[in-house]
Order: sequence, then structure tokens, then C-alpha cells
Amino acid sequence: MTRLVTAYSNPLVKHARNLREKRHRRESGQFLAEGLRILTEARESGRVPRLLFFTGATAAHPLVVRLIDAVEAAGGEALETTPDILSKLSGKDNPGAVMGVYDEFGATLDDLDRDASGIWLVAERLRDPGNLGTMLRTGDAVGAGGLILVGDCVDPFSVEAVRASMGALFTVPVVRCEWDAFLEWLRGGPGQLVGLSLDTERDYRAVDYAAPTFLLTGNEAQGMPEGYAEACDLLVKIPMLGRADSLNAAVATAVMAYEVLAQRQK
Amino acid sequence: MTRLVTAYSNPLVKHARNLREKRHRRESGQFLAEGLRILTEARESGRVPRLLFFTGATAAHPLVVRLIDAVEAAGGEALETTPDILSKLSGKDNPGAVMGVYDEFGATLDDLDRDASGIWLVAERLRDPGNLGTMLRTGDAVGAGGLILVGDCVDPFSVEAVRASMGALFTVPVVRCEWDAFLEWLRGGPGQLVGLSLDTERDYRAVDYAAPTFLLTGNEAQGMPEGYAEACDLLVKIPMLGRADSLNAAVATAVMAYEVLAQRQK
Repeated sequence: MTRLVTAYSNPLVKHARNLREKRHRRESGQFLAEGLRILTEARESGRVPRLLFFTGATAAHPLVVRLIDAVEAAGGEALETTPDILSKLSGKDNPGAVMGVYDEFGATLDDLDRDASGIWLVAERLRDPGNLGTMLRTGDAVGAGGLILVGDCVDPFSVEAVRASMGALFTVPVVRCEWDAFLEWLRGGPGQLVGLSLDTERDYRAVDYAAPTFLLTGNEAQGMPEGYAEACDLLVKIPMLGRADSLNAAVATAVMAYEVLAQRQK
Repeated sequence: MTRLVTAYSNPLVKHARNLREKRHRRESGQFLAEGLRILTEARESGRVPRLLFFTGATAAHPLVVRLIDAVEAAGGEALETTPDILSKLSGKDNPGAVMGVYDEFGATLDDLDRDASGIWLVAERLRDPGNLGTMLRTGDAVGAGGLILVGDCVDPFSVEAVRASMGALFTVPVVRCEWDAFLEWLRGGPGQLVGLSLDTERDYRAVDYAAPTFLLTGNEAQGMPEGYAEACDLLVKIPMLGRADSLNAAVATAVMAYEVLAQRQK
């Protein structure tokens, strides 16, 4: 049985709204995702929200019905609400058809199977949630084994990151760890660590990538710390013909990842 | 002589703050840019702000001094202000060291010299300002002749687009036009129009790109309209190995653009 919720003061509405803030995500261990496409992607990957918000206008949509069924079968709550409340939860004037509150999840380095893929993405002190989500989306597209977040990265469960991932947050494994732990894990098996750097003349296309390749991108403003470059098996650069010395971090990662993929597919 | 401005109610502060909204940009024909790096990039490209805001903390920085000199030489106003006001103008807790108010500029199709570059970026109904700015930044990096915005695209002078461009807005020509006008101009000279599409089996790396190449990316959610694909000389796709059927629009453009660049550099 779905319930009807029409008051902003409803505690479940307040809880969902608060998940836009990091502090509330940390306290509750839950996060917010929006849109029929993303929630359906999540459902098909086995992730069902604890709370599902939808409006009367879309309640009969077959994909919404399947979400409601899945939520109720898993013991969660499906809540019909007003367009105004959905808009408030979303923070957008034109919210998606549904919003879901999910339990956070995550993998550890030991959960990863490095033989599962020939391409892995590694980001160091990534600060922009849009970049994080976009990297996940790219990771899905190139069949990456996962995204490893090293050091103080932005929260992958932020609303902006989830949105930019277009559902890939639910399908691409994400691990958060420190640099030393990552290196120790990496060197415990095969793996070529390739760092994107400005301090090399080696073109990213002039390299033979050895599977599994771990593509390391540093902080958006500063790149990676000096000591990190020394730990890499290879440093590569992407040609820059213009005035700027760097690409957007998610773009740079994608350009490298597609080169690795092309070599694998040869 | 620089002036000191400490009141939120100062009309110049209010004007600058209002430029965060599209309506005020349209009415005044001005826009806002932030950060020492971007404003310096602009200055070196010959664009000097009408109004420059800075704080006492950075007033003696050599690059700030050069900006102040350039603004005053051009008849603009350099205004020392408080960190609070700079923060308000920026919309961020940690604003850049400077903010500038610039006159909008723009090129028309007839201003473009298609022989100037072998790569051009074309975006159709691009809706996300971050994507637009990121495309400009990529355009700078691959040496693109310009970014042609077709149809109802987001404002390239929005704060988010300027920020994501990292200064490339000032260095990469941007043209806004309708599809028919673009096609007419394109067919008036050499040019290969390559559309990114889901409805083709042709891999983007299995193509010989003929200079000048015009890379067309459609709307983030819908791709390009059907009739547009028919007008392309070639349709290409980027391999998608995961669950999703598309990449972020700025990422897809960059992956294609770097393939074209690699062919040119062979």
C-alpha cells in the first residue's frame, strides 16, 4: 500500500530533503537519487530504495509501478506526493518523475577483482562532484572494473555526483581509500599504473597499455603530488595545442580510457 | 585611481551580482568572470573588464596589478572590495582573487575562417553550461577553430559556462546560429560534417577525417533530430561497453576530437 504525503513537515520528506547535505548523509548512511532512468538502472542492478517518492501523474507508468512493487517487496515505503514536494526534494524546477532514498554502499580494495577488467580508473583528491559522476559514467562505457578514489575526494553519494553518473554509481564499483593502501593493494598483483602528468613528453597514444591498466588522474587544480608520479609505472600526457595547460579531469580520463580500450579491441 | 567599495547596496556591486541571471546579462550585454587565471587569460587575449573587483589581500599581486593597470588604461573601473562582497559576487564561499564584468562578444558564421583549423566543434541544443564550458576548454586544447552553437543552446556567458571554460571562452571563437544558417554556411566551402549518433555501426576510429572536420554533438538527453543526421556526411559512434547508451556530451566530443587530432598529427 502506497501512502499519500502532502506536507513539507512530514518527517520522511524532511529526511529526504536533508540528504542533499553531506552531514545528513554521513549520519544516516543514506543518499538521494532522482529520475526514472537512474532509479530503474539501480533496480536492474539490484539496488532498491528504502523510500520512493512519486506523484499521481506518473503513478501508472509501468516503470514506476515496477519500482513501487520492488520497494514494497523489499520492505521499503512508496510515497505518493505532490509535484511541489518532489521539486523541493530535487532542488530543480522540473524534477524527475521519481526520487529514491537509498542506503549507501561501497566496496573495499579487497572486494575488487583486478582480473574483472583491463581498465580501472583512479582519481586522486577529486573535488568536483560532476567530474566524479562523469568519470563513473565513462567507466561504465569503457567497461572499467571500478573507480578508485584516493585521498580526500568529493562524496560519490552527493546529489550532483549521482546525477552526473546517470546511474553508473549503481553499476560501477567505487572504492575510497588512502594512497598507501592503494599502492600496497596494487603491487600485490599485476597492474600498470599510468599517471596523467604535465611533466612528461610521452604522448598517451605512444604507449602500450598492459592489462590491467590503472589510469590515475590527479586533483583538478594541482594534479597529483610529486611523490605519486614516482610510484607510477608510466607517465603520459595528452597533447595540448592551445593556451591552457590542462583538460577537465573527467575529459582527460575519458580520452585516456578510450585509447586503452581501442588498444584492447585491436 | 582605484575606489574602495564596501556596501552591498553599491550600484556597481548590485549590477555585477545581477549578472548571474540571464535576464540581466541580456539587458546589459555584460557578463561576469572569476579568478586570476581566467581574467589573466582574458587580458592576454585582449579582453579587459569594464569593472574589476579585488580585495586588499591580493591588491599587490603582480597579476592583479597588471589587471588593474589594463582596466584603468581602457577606461574601466578597478574596485577594491571586501572578501564578503567578493564572495557574494562569486556565489562561492571561497571566491577567486578577482571578479570582472565584461562586455559580451561573439562572432557570426561569416567571421569564421574555416581554413584556420582542421577541427571545429558543433553543439546542437546544448543545455548544460558546464558542458558548454568544458567543450570550449577542449576546443582550446585540440586547437579547434571554434565552437558553433546550433539552435536553443545554453548561454555561453553564464557564470557556470565561463567557469568551466577555464578562460577558453576568451580564446575560442563562439558562434550562435540556427541549423539552416549553419548548413548553408558549411556547404559554401569545404567541410566534413561528422555527427555522433547511436544509429550507426561505424566506429569513430574507423573513419578518415577530412579537414576541416566539423564534429556535431546533439542535445544531452535526446541527441540530434533525425533530419540533422541526414545532413551529415558521416555518422559515427563511440563504443559503449556498459549498461548506458551514451557518454556525457562534453566527454563524447573530446573523445572524438582527440581522434581527429591524432589523425592530423600522423
